[in-house]
Amino acid sequence: MAKQKIVAAPSIRRLPSYLHIVRQAQRDGFEYISGTVIAQELNLEPIQVRKDLSITGIIGKPKKGYPIHALVAAIEHFLDWDSIRDAVLVGAGNLGSALTGYQEFHFHGLNVVAAFDRDPKKVGTTVHGVPVLSMDTIELQVRNLGVRMAILTVPFSSAQESADALVRAGITAIWNFTNVKLKVPDHVVVQKEDLSSGYAMLCVMLQSKKLESRDA
Amino acid sequence: MAKQKIVAAPSIRRLPSYLHIVRQAQRDGFEYISGTVIAQELNLEPIQVRKDLSITGIIGKPKKGYPIHALVAAIEHFLDWDSIRDAVLVGAGNLGSALTGYQEFHFHGLNVVAAFDRDPKKVGTTVHGVPVLSMDTIELQVRNLGVRMAILTVPFSSAQESADALVRAGITAIWNFTNVKLKVPDHVVVQKEDLSSGYAMLCVMLQSKKLESRDA
Repeated sequence: MAKQKIVAAPSIRRLPSYLHIVRQAQRDGFEYISGTVIAQELNLEPIQVRKDLSITGIIGKPKKGYPIHALVAAIEHFLDWDSIRDAVLVGAGNLGSALTGYQEFHFHGLNVVAAFDRDPKKVGTTVHGVPVLSMDTIELQVRNLGVRMAILTVPFSSAQESADALVRAGITAIWNFTNVKLKVPDHVVVQKEDLSSGYAMLCVMLQSKKLESRDA
Repeated sequence: MAKQKIVAAPSIRRLPSYLHIVRQAQRDGFEYISGTVIAQELNLEPIQVRKDLSITGIIGKPKKGYPIHALVAAIEHFLDWDSIRDAVLVGAGNLGSALTGYQEFHFHGLNVVAAFDRDPKKVGTTVHGVPVLSMDTIELQVRNLGVRMAILTVPFSSAQESADALVRAGITAIWNFTNVKLKVPDHVVVQKEDLSSGYAMLCVMLQSKKLESRDA
């Protein structure tokens, strides 16, 4: 089973937020932005921001901060978001179609070229302009398309089976929105996205606040 | 600005995965499940699983493991998922409607009672059976509904303004799917969900793998 260890994971996870703020400053006509300003916006320590940004290779100038144009380019290049990346969607349900239509991902170079679904009623239709094809043809189609990335939003009962078909078809990166821990060969990377985890956190925080105010 | 520190955050984030596996074992007719079996399913260390589960107050029996019925109840009770929690959706776009229709959240007690949107064409319609109301009426309606939780899926430009209205209306928990760091009073908890972060991780892992295979 593949174990991916990315040392700077928390830093990488913060880069999109930095990019968002820096692009906003760029639109507002600024040429430089300081680590302190970014830190304030995101409620982080300035030293953390500087450390995080240093993984992209960029270094700020004393008193001026980071040149915005170069900073945008450095973050985008580090994330490989400065090129187009084709992907397929597997499972054209609610979440899958929402992700396909999610404008922000387009800005990051994500280009969904085909969707696959088991439901004969969906096959032949489109979601946000993306054609929905039959799951039966997934291996052949993905291979023909030469796509390497897949977004997996199928029910958990067919998650592993879909992943197996994707791997056979040459997929090397799976964005996994199912709650199944996928078993994949070492050359395949999987990013698991668990929306229930976030909801669990929210529920526990809400209870803690209730207890706090009861204790107060 | 509210700073929420939940000590056991990583443990809490894993609880939904545990719950998923334990419920599956329950459906399969088992009465006990061991920490080792759960660990194997999730590619974790058994000691980690036992530590995580201990925050719910449950303790396994030597050689037998955890009584499944009690374990499900303990996790659900800890997460407050054993009661119904009403929420409103703010922003009835693609992502918002996908979340409203996401079956898994219903199992966790999340009950979306109303959605709000700026778009006059959406107001008066329903998403997955939930009525879409006008953003202009949000404060009054949320107060009347007595709802405490909101799912925020508006564009980033109106995120803070929407959050302000929600807080005025008595909302104390915001599940924030926008990429804005919301400023809220101390009594309000916010869980930020950043889908771009996961996508950033996937892109970086994919590049690392490419480099690895080139170096090999």
